[in-house]
Amino acid sequence: MRAARYLGGGVIEVGGAESLAPRADEVTIRVAYNGICGTDLHIVQGHMDARVATPAVIGHEMSGVVDAVGEGVDDLKAGQPVTVMPLRWCGECASCRAGHQHICQRLDFVGIDSPGALQELWTVPASLVVPLPEGVSLQHAALVEPLAVAVHDVRRSRLAAGETAVVIGGGPIGQLIAVVARATGADVILAEPDAARRGFAEQQGAVVVDPVGEDLAAVVEERTGGAGADVVFEVAGTRGTALDATRHARTRGRVVFVAIHPEPVPVDLHRVFWRELEVLGARVYEREDFEHAVRLLAEGSVPADALITRVVPLDETMTAFDDLLSAAAMKILVDVQGGTR
Amino acid sequence: MRAARYLGGGVIEVGGAESLAPRADEVTIRVAYNGICGTDLHIVQGHMDARVATPAVIGHEMSGVVDAVGEGVDDLKAGQPVTVMPLRWCGECASCRAGHQHICQRLDFVGIDSPGALQELWTVPASLVVPLPEGVSLQHAALVEPLAVAVHDVRRSRLAAGETAVVIGGGPIGQLIAVVARATGADVILAEPDAARRGFAEQQGAVVVDPVGEDLAAVVEERTGGAGADVVFEVAGTRGTALDATRHARTRGRVVFVAIHPEPVPVDLHRVFWRELEVLGARVYEREDFEHAVRLLAEGSVPADALITRVVPLDETMTAFDDLLSAAAMKILVDVQGGTR
Repeated sequence: MRAARYLGGGVIEVGGAESLAPRADEVTIRVAYNGICGTDLHIVQGHMDARVATPAVIGHEMSGVVDAVGEGVDDLKAGQPVTVMPLRWCGECASCRAGHQHICQRLDFVGIDSPGALQELWTVPASLVVPLPEGVSLQHAALVEPLAVAVHDVRRSRLAAGETAVVIGGGPIGQLIAVVARATGADVILAEPDAARRGFAEQQGAVVVDPVGEDLAAVVEERTGGAGADVVFEVAGTRGTALDATRHARTRGRVVFVAIHPEPVPVDLHRVFWRELEVLGARVYEREDFEHAVRLLAEGSVPADALITRVVPLDETMTAFDDLLSAAAMKILVDVQGGTR
Repeated sequence: MRAARYLGGGVIEVGGAESLAPRADEVTIRVAYNGICGTDLHIVQGHMDARVATPAVIGHEMSGVVDAVGEGVDDLKAGQPVTVMPLRWCGECASCRAGHQHICQRLDFVGIDSPGALQELWTVPASLVVPLPEGVSLQHAALVEPLAVAVHDVRRSRLAAGETAVVIGGGPIGQLIAVVARATGADVILAEPDAARRGFAEQQGAVVVDPVGEDLAAVVEERTGGAGADVVFEVAGTRGTALDATRHARTRGRVVFVAIHPEPVPVDLHRVFWRELEVLGARVYEREDFEHAVRLLAEGSVPADALITRVVPLDETMTAFDDLLSAAAMKILVDVQGGTR
C-alpha cells in the first residue's frame, strides 16, 4: 500500500508502506478521504518537530470503509463506512478518572503523536471507530472531525436558541462554529477580513462584519439592544482578537477561546471582572460531540460541499499543503485511494 | 454632626457637616464603625480622582443604628442595628433587566460615587439597609461588606465541600475568601509572602505557602494527588500571579480573578485551552451574599476580632490611612462617633 509521510524540513513524500494486520480489538480501515487541518500545516512547517517523530504519517480528519477486523471486534464488519475519533487516553490519570478522557494527561492524538490516516490502509483500536449512517457520503464524512471540534466549542459555551453568538475569525473552524450555532437556533455575527469567507458565512445565515473597515462592537451593541453577545468565540488567534473578544460579551456572557495561543497574551481582565464574564477553554471533543457531528451531517445541516474547496489524489498531498499555506482555500481533501491516477 | 472628607491631594479633613433628614423611603443611620477598604486607599492616593468628586465623604464598610426613618419605611425602626449594602442600580439597563443589578451599567457605588459612611449621621435609601440579628456586635458588623465580597467570590466559583481551593494573596479579601472556603468545607491552600499573614491563615485552618521560597505548584500537586486544585482565587493582583493562577487548576477547574487588573495582563490561554479551564470574573455582591455574610458572622464562623487590627476615632482617620499605606495592618475601623475624645 501507499502512504504520505512527513519527512521534516517541510517535505512530504508519497511512497510504498507496509500495512498492519488488525490485532485483537483493532480495525483496519481502507481510508477514503483525509482532510488537511491547520495543525497539519503547523506540523509540515516544522512548528511541531519537537512532538512529531519523523518520518510521520499524519492526518486525522478522515473517512473510510472497514477492511478487516481483529479478534474480539463484534460490532464492526468489513465494508462498513466509518470515521475515527483520533484520541487515545490512558484511563488512569486524574483527568481520565474525573471523566475527562479527552483531556487525558497522557493523551495520544492519533495522526500527530502516532500514525495517521494519510495511508491507504490504517489500523486503529476499534474503540476509536465511529460508524457512519446511510446518507452521509465519504467526502462529507471527512468533515466530521473538524465539525466535532465546533460542536464541542458550542456545547462548552452553553449557547441556546435565541441567543446571540459572535464568531471572530472565518476560517474552517470559525465557519463550522457559525454553522453549529445557527443549527442551535442562535443569531450569529461573524467577523472576518476576507471577503470570500464573509460571503460564505453570509450564505449560511450569519451577519458578517469586516473588522478592518467596520466597527464590530457597534454592530454587536446594535443587534443586542446594548446588552452585548451571549457568547463570543475567539477563533482568529491574534493578540488583537484575544484582547478584543471580552469586549463583545454581555454581563455574565461566555467567551470561548478556540484558537490556540501558544504564548501568554494580554487579556482584558478588567472587563472579565466588570461584567462577570466566564472565559472558557475548549479542547478537541468528546464522543457525544463526534456523534452529534455525524447527525448534523446526516440531517443536512452542514454546507459540506461548499466547505470542500478541492479534492486531490494522494500523490498531490504536498501541493495541497502548499496551496493551503499560500491561498485562502477552505478545506482540501486528499483522496487517499486516488494516488495513482 | 461631623464628617471625614477627602479633599483631594491625599488629604482627609474632619469637620462639621450638615445632616440630611430622611425623605420618603430613606433612613438616617447613626454610623458606629466604618472599615477602611483598599478602594478607599486608592481614592486617597488620587488614583480615582476622575471618578470621585471632591470634597467627598467616602466609606462603605459600616455598621450603625437607625436614627430616623422617612415616610413609607415600615420595616425599620429607630434603635435597630443595621449595615448597608452600598449599591444603587438603575433598574432599566440590560444588566438590571437580566437580573444582574449589582452589575448595573449605571451603578452608583455608595461611598465612591455618592456620599459614604464616614459621617456621624448618614442618610441612605431604605432598600440598601440590611438589618443585623442579635449577637453580631457593631464592630464585627463593619466586616459584613468585605465578607460579602468573599462570599460572592466563593459562590461564583461553585466551590463545594471536599474540594480544594488555592487562594493567592493573604490580604483582607484573600483571608476572608479562605475563611468562607473553609466554612464551605473546602481544603484551602493560601500563598502569601508576609509571614504574619501566613500565620493568620494557618490559624484559620489553611495550608500556607510562602511563594518566595516555596513551590506553590508542587504543594498543590502533592495535596491533590497530581490533579490540581478545583478552584483558584487570584487575589494578589500582580502580573506574575495573574499569569501563574491558571497553572494550579485541575482539568475543568475554575479560576476566579478577584484582584482588579486595570490594564490587560498576559494570561496563559494555552493552559485555559489545555485543561478546559473556566475563568470567572466576580464583582461586588448580591443581596443574598450580604445576608449570607451576616449569617456567617452571627454563627461565629469568622475570626472577626483577629481581623480587626485597630479601632481609631474619627479624628484619626487620616492617620489610619497612612498606617494602612505604610504597614501590614489587616483591617482598621474608624469609630465614627468617637471623634471628640
